[in-house]
Amino acid sequence: MSKTIGVLLAGCGVFDGAEIHEAVLTLLFLDRAGVAVRCMAPDMDQLHVIDHLSQQEADEKRNVLVESARIARGEIQDIAEVHATDIDALIVPGGFGAAKNLSDFAVKGPECTVHAEVQRLLTEMVDAGKPIGAICIAPATVVRSLADRSPKVTIGNDVGTAAAIGTMGGEHVDCSVADIYVDEKNRIVTTPAYMLGPGIKDVAIGIEKLVDKVVSLC
Amino acid sequence: MSKTIGVLLAGCGVFDGAEIHEAVLTLLFLDRAGVAVRCMAPDMDQLHVIDHLSQQEADEKRNVLVESARIARGEIQDIAEVHATDIDALIVPGGFGAAKNLSDFAVKGPECTVHAEVQRLLTEMVDAGKPIGAICIAPATVVRSLADRSPKVTIGNDVGTAAAIGTMGGEHVDCSVADIYVDEKNRIVTTPAYMLGPGIKDVAIGIEKLVDKVVSLC
Repeated sequence: MSKTIGVLLAGCGVFDGAEIHEAVLTLLFLDRAGVAVRCMAPDMDQLHVIDHLSQQEADEKRNVLVESARIARGEIQDIAEVHATDIDALIVPGGFGAAKNLSDFAVKGPECTVHAEVQRLLTEMVDAGKPIGAICIAPATVVRSLADRSPKVTIGNDVGTAAAIGTMGGEHVDCSVADIYVDEKNRIVTTPAYMLGPGIKDVAIGIEKLVDKVVSLC
Repeated sequence: MSKTIGVLLAGCGVFDGAEIHEAVLTLLFLDRAGVAVRCMAPDMDQLHVIDHLSQQEADEKRNVLVESARIARGEIQDIAEVHATDIDALIVPGGFGAAKNLSDFAVKGPECTVHAEVQRLLTEMVDAGKPIGAICIAPATVVRSLADRSPKVTIGNDVGTAAAIGTMGGEHVDCSVADIYVDEKNRIVTTPAYMLGPGIKDVAIGIEKLVDKVVSLC
């Protein structure tokens, strides 16, 4: 039986959704690893819409699930329909959406609230001993969700974000863009990606390692 | 001096814009090839907006340049500002946007009209002897633009589209997703990508070959 890996998206675009390069690279390396993919996203309004040309807020509403469907080429479902029994592992790409939609960490920092279905699925996964991968800023949302497990993660080397991870009950470990950090106890794999950059070929190195590690932990 | 390769986007999403996987894979392989990238798109309304979850038309307007900026992480410019003297080659990813926004081939078939700035830049490129890469359905727009050069291209093996390419003054050559077709005379490189699929790892093979060939032709 082929493994099935969930990919949790948060919209479509670095400034208000899932980081597109990170999401697509995740899909590429999962496909190369020979596993099946199940894309999902919460059915909710985005925190806001950012015009990615002007980088100003636009007077628009967009839905996280509908926009995430662009990255998934329509093959996506509401996270509310997905349970840990359906997947062998879960990977969360970054982008501001992972800290604006999946939680409100980008607005509230360590006092943030995680979307209820995201909180539920992450908890189910770790309770089932199934691995979680989190990319870029997504580890902040994972730490807030799983604070009682004292997760160890990396978001690169940003001092402020690292401190916030500590405040939320996690532990931050510095890491380069070409590497991953593995919390063996909780089976959580993280990589900094565009928290460090600088370019797509660089983030691809860490994301490929993350995908291979998550698949090997299944 | 590093080479600079233009990437012409057509929005953000397979059904109404640039195909996201094809666009991101193009950026990945260009970065790995060590060249500089200049993303561009026309500043125009999309033909329409498709909800990628329901695949129905949405009652919305979106701008091609603004949406393309999502794929380019904000680093993009209006194609009207780009000339063949600025770039060493041009690559056009696919997705319906390449046949709905860059031209209206998806609506009018061989009688389609190409966006004036797209027509201008493609003509400048071929006049300058600079290579062009076109992915998926994008070759149809390239053929319509450069009909007087009798371009030879592939879009895979779709009989209807192949016939339309012939009607427009081009010539179609069947090709697998893992391969490219090179029109040596016009320096045009094409690959079928998601015209054939089936998955991202498959389209990545042809797109990597296309990028490497385009860069080698510079």
